[in-house]
Amino acid sequence: MSETFEEISAADFFYRNRDIAGFTNPARAIFSSIRELVENSLDAADLSGFLPDIYVRLSYEDEEKFESELAAEKKAAAKDEEEEAETFETGIYKLRVEDNGSGVPARHIPSAFGQVLFGSKYKLRQTRGTFGLGGTMSLLYGQITTHKPAYVISSTCKSMIYTYKITTDIQRNRPIILDRKMLLNKEGWHGTIVEFSLEGDYSKAMPRILEYLKQTALVTPYANLTFVDPKGRMYRFNRATTQMPPPSKETKPHPYGVDVETIQRLIRMTQTRNMVDFMRTHFHRVGEVTAHKFLESTGISQTRNPRKLKSEEIVRLVHMMKRFNGFLAPDASCLSPLGEELLKTGILKELKPEFIAVRQRPPSTYSGHPFIVEAAIAYGGEVPKRNDFVLYRFANRIPLLYDEASDVSWRIIKSMNWRRYKVTPDLPIAILVHLCSTKIPYKTVGKEFIADRPEVKREILNGIREAARELQHFLTKQEHVERDRKRLSVFSKYLPKIAQFSTDLAGKKKQPDISKLLDTVRKYEEEAD
Amino acid sequence: MSETFEEISAADFFYRNRDIAGFTNPARAIFSSIRELVENSLDAADLSGFLPDIYVRLSYEDEEKFESELAAEKKAAAKDEEEEAETFETGIYKLRVEDNGSGVPARHIPSAFGQVLFGSKYKLRQTRGTFGLGGTMSLLYGQITTHKPAYVISSTCKSMIYTYKITTDIQRNRPIILDRKMLLNKEGWHGTIVEFSLEGDYSKAMPRILEYLKQTALVTPYANLTFVDPKGRMYRFNRATTQMPPPSKETKPHPYGVDVETIQRLIRMTQTRNMVDFMRTHFHRVGEVTAHKFLESTGISQTRNPRKLKSEEIVRLVHMMKRFNGFLAPDASCLSPLGEELLKTGILKELKPEFIAVRQRPPSTYSGHPFIVEAAIAYGGEVPKRNDFVLYRFANRIPLLYDEASDVSWRIIKSMNWRRYKVTPDLPIAILVHLCSTKIPYKTVGKEFIADRPEVKREILNGIREAARELQHFLTKQEHVERDRKRLSVFSKYLPKIAQFSTDLAGKKKQPDISKLLDTVRKYEEEAD
Repeated sequence: MSETFEEISAADFFYRNRDIAGFTNPARAIFSSIRELVENSLDAADLSGFLPDIYVRLSYEDEEKFESELAAEKKAAAKDEEEEAETFETGIYKLRVEDNGSGVPARHIPSAFGQVLFGSKYKLRQTRGTFGLGGTMSLLYGQITTHKPAYVISSTCKSMIYTYKITTDIQRNRPIILDRKMLLNKEGWHGTIVEFSLEGDYSKAMPRILEYLKQTALVTPYANLTFVDPKGRMYRFNRATTQMPPPSKETKPHPYGVDVETIQRLIRMTQTRNMVDFMRTHFHRVGEVTAHKFLESTGISQTRNPRKLKSEEIVRLVHMMKRFNGFLAPDASCLSPLGEELLKTGILKELKPEFIAVRQRPPSTYSGHPFIVEAAIAYGGEVPKRNDFVLYRFANRIPLLYDEASDVSWRIIKSMNWRRYKVTPDLPIAILVHLCSTKIPYKTVGKEFIADRPEVKREILNGIREAARELQHFLTKQEHVERDRKRLSVFSKYLPKIAQFSTDLAGKKKQPDISKLLDTVRKYEEEAD
Repeated sequence: MSETFEEISAADFFYRNRDIAGFTNPARAIFSSIRELVENSLDAADLSGFLPDIYVRLSYEDEEKFESELAAEKKAAAKDEEEEAETFETGIYKLRVEDNGSGVPARHIPSAFGQVLFGSKYKLRQTRGTFGLGGTMSLLYGQITTHKPAYVISSTCKSMIYTYKITTDIQRNRPIILDRKMLLNKEGWHGTIVEFSLEGDYSKAMPRILEYLKQTALVTPYANLTFVDPKGRMYRFNRATTQMPPPSKETKPHPYGVDVETIQRLIRMTQTRNMVDFMRTHFHRVGEVTAHKFLESTGISQTRNPRKLKSEEIVRLVHMMKRFNGFLAPDASCLSPLGEELLKTGILKELKPEFIAVRQRPPSTYSGHPFIVEAAIAYGGEVPKRNDFVLYRFANRIPLLYDEASDVSWRIIKSMNWRRYKVTPDLPIAILVHLCSTKIPYKTVGKEFIADRPEVKREILNGIREAARELQHFLTKQEHVERDRKRLSVFSKYLPKIAQFSTDLAGKKKQPDISKLLDTVRKYEEEAD
């Protein structure tokens, strides 16, 4: 009757629960693998200031074998059509992703790609990756579906290029190095190449992969993205500018939203000897004056040694940090939003709308993480009409394509009273929301959608509202113009007839010159356009 | 420019990313804590065959302090109403959950509650808990918001009752035992009591908590659930039956859907010396005959030592396991579905519908895990009309309340052509889906919704379709009956008048006896009811 207990490793946990990391089925797995590796590559280039050149190649592992197998399977499955549609397009693919980023130091390569929860992403910094999990998960998925090792080639621009052949010991969550080679780096190359085999379903994943790359190109106009698909088709997204945003910087936690655990960790490592220095050294935008004022409000002495704080005092400190309103707002200089101009350019290029409103909200925080919301509304033009709004979601410059309905932005849009803005769902309206933060509150490890953090929710709501108000003005104006134009168009139609009739009635032969009046009408019409 | 790399513990990972475990905000955190502990308690009772008695008490940590603080905060926040609504209802609560389950062996108590990824749930077995994470996450959330230790009291019906005062070292993912007491277990008590403090927002969480308990009671009619809320209100859900389903059994993996990693693990631990024994011993429903036939199809010798399989052979073995169609379907005896009767009773009690169709699908598998789908459709009665279907989702007898729109069932309902079943969204229709499996493919660690596994999707679709077809018959019949009744009702209204008129016309005084005819009409009407 008694239960047996056991401990499992983090790798084992994600192996058992790969659904939560975005590896639900063969189509999703191939999408997630490409996406995770592309995002790592973009981060590696961005953070070191290199203009990203990313090359992705997906090919059949063994083309002939694959083709004949597929044919045989199709034949076997022909009896059960539904079955076939659901299951039998999967095959074994080889995926190769190359970048020109900063490279991974040789000693970290095995763990960075063969160990779960090991990486360079655990910092307060705006990066695409946040869990330090995606790259390893992709390789791990390849391993459990094909039982083949992965190859990682990398150089940090030093004298050598390193090639590792690795696999993961899932039960122990440790990389196993099967082979290791060194090459002279004659040309001073820097970057990382990852190649591995995995089971997938490209035909089903294709639309999402292309949409993903397209939207990524939209928000990363300084990157070259190349994708070669298994049929040899090449998709190129060329850079439109060589101007890069400055690399995002690491920040300290903002006092608003810090928790007890964070304070304890800081206390454990701090070199400071009094509370004023403690506050100044470890918190975002806390200077001497603010530290003094804040400490006064807590009743904790300024000269107190932080290492000697009692448990209740730590709790009080955290409690007061959330409530003290003398802290400066977080500095957004560590964040790297798109900017209203870039956002506008991207949307104009993609959707060619009749009207567009773009809003960047001032920086805010949730749980000590600064964030900025950018929102845009586009109307008309090539915005698809689909009896519901079209929503484009971005987080730290990555497009989010799955599970829209659970995303905080979608919920907000659904909860808004759109009639107030003269908007009905049948209008062709696209809404874009970009959240950037040192930490995105994703709901799933697969980075599909964002959780309902109240602070984030409020900012998104405000951003959309502001843009919606502009749209309302436009729609109202358009309504007026439309009414005027109708009236004038009627006028210009009948004016010649009235002139004719009046001339006849007066018994005159020469009609009065109505061209001036008609010009005025035309002028109104042109203005209306 | 070079990146720094680090390794974090599993506890640290979930501490940093608590959104993915359902601890997004104070309201959600209090909901998740209650839910996770109640589910552990129900599992602990179910698995050992005790009729569950669960007692949950949520109280203000320090009532007076809390009240005065709340008042002060409300005053301070009065200027900014929105802010207040979003942030300031949170307070510190004490949560206590008691059960009469099998108890946790003393030596495992600290790890079971103070270490992430340690537990008794990592088995192929139908349980409510699956991640071995929820209980620890609740305590961990309490720790980081209040900095207070948790108390766990447990006994496995042996001579002693153990009390532990524990906390978690998050960075190392290890429990810290602060205190430990032993008491003589004179009355032979078995069960577990957990008590800890946490920050939460009960007023916002309340509706969901009550809905959760109500729906849990619905699918666990053999349990007593008691909840006392912070205002002292007691909610009781009494057991309606003392008949319990048999405890769910652990199973072996079914060959369909096994992956390379699983095979490797089996090879590492197997005692068998040939492939026939290997197949028979470690796989679900594989006997001698099936093993022979299957091995023939793979080209791997029956006498081969499994430990000597080459890498390619393992891959081929897995490949063929997915494709061989001679395996027996998984045995559902290890699963414990609700059953059509119980499901019907529950729905009739709750919704009092005019019509109900309940379907239990035959067992199926995904990735080697057997599962059963139960689906029901209820129409009319007290089913709410809300211009969209009402969906009740259950997985291994737990209600899923959040993120409905991302759930596989919701997507299926949305993708179906309901006109085919004479159904329009304005009809009062409730759909219930219960999935039970040795492993539910949750998309989030917070167990909010189920991923799109193709096999699961197909079964849910079929279940709903079958129920919908029954509904269609009912609606068609109802339409006919309605039409007939109208016609008959007209008939019974005019028949006396016609009789009168005919009598007058014939110049007779005595009207013919029409009561017989009217009886026939009434009989039709009664039948129609």
